[in-house]
Amino acid sequence: MLKRYIPLLEWRKTYNRHTFNSDLIAAMIVTVMLIPQSLAYALLAGLPAEVGLYASILPLIAYSIFGTSSTLSVGPVAVVSLMTAAAISSLGMLSMEQKIAAAMALAFISGLLLLVMGLFRLGMLANFLSHPVISGFISAAGLVIAASQLPHLMGISAHGHNLFELGQSIYAQFAMINYPTLIIGVSTLALLWWVRKSLKPLLLNLNIPDTLAGNIAKTGPVLAIILTILVTWGFNLDARGVAVVGDIPQGLPDFSVPVFNSELWQQLFSSAVLISIIGFVESVSVAQTLAAKRRQRISPDQELIGLGAANIASSVSGGFPVTGGFSRSVVNFDAGAKSPAAGAYAAMGIALATVFLTPLIYFLPKATLAATIIIAVLSLVDFQALKRTWQYSRGDFAAMSVTIIFTLISGVELGILLGVGLSILLYLYRTSRPHSALVGLLEGTEHFRNIDRHQVKTCSKMLTLRIDESLYFANARYLEDRVYDLVAQHPKIEHFVLMCPAVNYIDASALESLEAINTRLGDSGVLFHLSEVKGPVMDKLTASHFNQQLTGEVFLSQYDAWQALSNKKTTPS
Amino acid sequence: MLKRYIPLLEWRKTYNRHTFNSDLIAAMIVTVMLIPQSLAYALLAGLPAEVGLYASILPLIAYSIFGTSSTLSVGPVAVVSLMTAAAISSLGMLSMEQKIAAAMALAFISGLLLLVMGLFRLGMLANFLSHPVISGFISAAGLVIAASQLPHLMGISAHGHNLFELGQSIYAQFAMINYPTLIIGVSTLALLWWVRKSLKPLLLNLNIPDTLAGNIAKTGPVLAIILTILVTWGFNLDARGVAVVGDIPQGLPDFSVPVFNSELWQQLFSSAVLISIIGFVESVSVAQTLAAKRRQRISPDQELIGLGAANIASSVSGGFPVTGGFSRSVVNFDAGAKSPAAGAYAAMGIALATVFLTPLIYFLPKATLAATIIIAVLSLVDFQALKRTWQYSRGDFAAMSVTIIFTLISGVELGILLGVGLSILLYLYRTSRPHSALVGLLEGTEHFRNIDRHQVKTCSKMLTLRIDESLYFANARYLEDRVYDLVAQHPKIEHFVLMCPAVNYIDASALESLEAINTRLGDSGVLFHLSEVKGPVMDKLTASHFNQQLTGEVFLSQYDAWQALSNKKTTPS
Repeated sequence: MLKRYIPLLEWRKTYNRHTFNSDLIAAMIVTVMLIPQSLAYALLAGLPAEVGLYASILPLIAYSIFGTSSTLSVGPVAVVSLMTAAAISSLGMLSMEQKIAAAMALAFISGLLLLVMGLFRLGMLANFLSHPVISGFISAAGLVIAASQLPHLMGISAHGHNLFELGQSIYAQFAMINYPTLIIGVSTLALLWWVRKSLKPLLLNLNIPDTLAGNIAKTGPVLAIILTILVTWGFNLDARGVAVVGDIPQGLPDFSVPVFNSELWQQLFSSAVLISIIGFVESVSVAQTLAAKRRQRISPDQELIGLGAANIASSVSGGFPVTGGFSRSVVNFDAGAKSPAAGAYAAMGIALATVFLTPLIYFLPKATLAATIIIAVLSLVDFQALKRTWQYSRGDFAAMSVTIIFTLISGVELGILLGVGLSILLYLYRTSRPHSALVGLLEGTEHFRNIDRHQVKTCSKMLTLRIDESLYFANARYLEDRVYDLVAQHPKIEHFVLMCPAVNYIDASALESLEAINTRLGDSGVLFHLSEVKGPVMDKLTASHFNQQLTGEVFLSQYDAWQALSNKKTTPS
Repeated sequence: MLKRYIPLLEWRKTYNRHTFNSDLIAAMIVTVMLIPQSLAYALLAGLPAEVGLYASILPLIAYSIFGTSSTLSVGPVAVVSLMTAAAISSLGMLSMEQKIAAAMALAFISGLLLLVMGLFRLGMLANFLSHPVISGFISAAGLVIAASQLPHLMGISAHGHNLFELGQSIYAQFAMINYPTLIIGVSTLALLWWVRKSLKPLLLNLNIPDTLAGNIAKTGPVLAIILTILVTWGFNLDARGVAVVGDIPQGLPDFSVPVFNSELWQQLFSSAVLISIIGFVESVSVAQTLAAKRRQRISPDQELIGLGAANIASSVSGGFPVTGGFSRSVVNFDAGAKSPAAGAYAAMGIALATVFLTPLIYFLPKATLAATIIIAVLSLVDFQALKRTWQYSRGDFAAMSVTIIFTLISGVELGILLGVGLSILLYLYRTSRPHSALVGLLEGTEHFRNIDRHQVKTCSKMLTLRIDESLYFANARYLEDRVYDLVAQHPKIEHFVLMCPAVNYIDASALESLEAINTRLGDSGVLFHLSEVKGPVMDKLTASHFNQQLTGEVFLSQYDAWQALSNKKTTPS
């Protein structure tokens, strides 16, 4: 029982010096990558930089105990940080202390929700986010995040929840651009871009091994941080208006339980639901992709518990909502992490940095962090997916477009909600007008086919409608209309057969419709039959006494129905 | 074109003296029934009694022009009046003038919504209300309405949006009961109950013809009104605390266009959406039931236009939201109404009453109207349906129970929204874990059956999974998991066939999952095949280039797949 919820108890048995070495090396590389990310995403969430560090210590340890992925790197990520910023700013004007308290509360509620979902095995809730909606959301959120960093790059304090407001705000402050900041920001952007595109090929040309070259290229943000700290310190740029990270409390975070404030919790609840589900979907996709490469499996329901524990750990140690990040996890995987312990070792690395390195980043320009965020999130933007989706399905394209448009113009929460709502409505709409066909006997066989597409035998006394969908509330009335229309068009028939080979379920609404059809046809002297009803569906119909009311019969196969009901004087149609 | 939207242009061609006579008689009977109903439902909505009369004039004329049912009686109905009361009270404390303005705005928005839904043929939206949710909602709303009338019956002014609040409020004012009011109320209740249960059998015993006896029994409320007016006037009961209808402005309502107030409209919008859909569902069910009895059809999309026109007519003539009522329509039908003109004649009857009879109802006790409402709505309450639904489907039962419970304890809007939301979620949940089975060849046939249920031939090199549901976002990941698990359990297989006879649709999310399965199986040296893919599904897959990536083949029939892939050295399972 305990082992089911604490995977650590299982994998520690096979833990040895070899896995320890692999994990340690991976952890060192991830730590170097995680420091700038955690600082930057804390700023993106509108919180002090150190909150990002705090969110990268205890949560990683909690995940290494409760998580199932051996390579997932938990911590602050871009999209969830943006959603945290949106949730906090929806509370109105707050002091920084209040913001931190709200972020901790958000992580706590989100952690609780994830834990509850895990205990009740509700991981399937994430399935209601269709791929096009997620993909559209991530692309649009990437754009919104990149745009939100532009003011930092220019040294102005523009704000906005969507591209509109932000653009207006930037435009209004255009005259106040701080040029030293702009120069640092744009140079960092150029450096990071170059590192990402050209450094690895260059290193490979110098005969440096592939993995090492890749890992060196991944240290671009650290390089940028060191360079810009030196420049800012050397030229005393903070006195010339370059915003720097400044004083960060040295040492580990204090433990504290988030204060329960029912009004605050209510206001944050819906945001916490979205953050939990989006964070879970993002994290579990990464974990599954990486696990598949090594022929491993992860358990989505246990992942909920792992992420829930990580968020609660974050909330009690001064952090904000966390989840598994894509780029870091790939680095962790490539660097050879073999168990969740690698995450715990990275946590120790961050803890050491928090204790010893914080004085060194006093002069770190916020523009540098903004540039690292922009480069990171632009790789999330994939508008090619729009074209592919358009080609395959107009409905999916509509859901994706609505998600993108509303995320850009109204904000992340409305965007994702409308996308999910629309994709569900479109699915219901699709199944509410199911495909159905009148069928006849394919001569010389026992098969029945659409009379409009095939040369088939029909019988003037009977009509057979094959319905290609489960029957439920959204299509029950449509079925009634279709049957009544057909009977009205064929006044001579004596038997109506509903052929149900693709009917996987009949709900209570559809049952009432079948009863209504049975009664109405009975009144006009037409017997109502069913054929090819699947076993589980038949069991339910029998339990409901529908069979007893049925004016006709239930036939196992449509051919049985044909033999029993047709007058044999068949006419080719 | 015009004829499509104005059914009047069609049916007036066959209108003659005979239909006129039938319509006129039906209209007279309906008028007598409509007067007390319209007064009572206006009070239920929290509005002055005359508003009910105004809502029973112009709306009926509008419906007779645009509606398609020859027997539907449009006007104030209980459930919609209750929802109107809830919508208005959610605006906060208002003066009576403001309440009337809000009711008119609500009717206007609701009318516009119905018109737009009609023009865009969105009648199918009503299908998202499952039968159990509607049935549960109507029963619970009936109870709430009956309870809301108890204070009127006792002469106290208790209020509440749900049974809880109302119960508390009544309890608090228990000492202030007005006994003359209580006596009038309870006697009326007893009289109406006796009329409903025992008068018709009594009249039949006196050899009065069936139809006439039925119609006399339907005049119970009018009888009660006349008796209690006389008693109140004779004993001067209004001076002893019996609340009476009092002064009603004599004459027809003024025309006025509802003022556009964007804040008010926004506040009322979601209530208007619910009122429109609930009103439409109720009305169209009645209209369809009655039309079916005479082998007629109604057009649901044109009904939306008819009801939309009726609500706009109500809003410009001082009324409130209206729809087709069940009991009145049955009376109209039984009394022999032959065309929508019957509604217009009833409107004239109400207009005459508004001009001439209003002084006579000064002494009408509100307790009498409360008693007529209670008797009318209790017939809506059908908790037997709970038992029937429980027996047939636990999911439908859950949706029904949630609707009932939340309608009773939280109010009508939350009740219906949660019911609809839950029924959609349960449907998605059901399809998110679709039935699937490994299948094998039924010896001597070309049929393939579940290997767990039948004695079938299988082949050690190939595995065939039959999936019994359309593939879409909610079950895409489940399919992936199922396939990967099966392949992991059968390490020796070389071919995996997905048999799709019941797959009616594959959306973009499921396509990505199929691509992932194809790639993953390919990596492990297993070829991925499809069989029995339906024509429309195949067309989409071809357009998406999935076929080109597919490591295996697409077989028209599973038997073709078997012949091509099995090693012929088959082993009976």
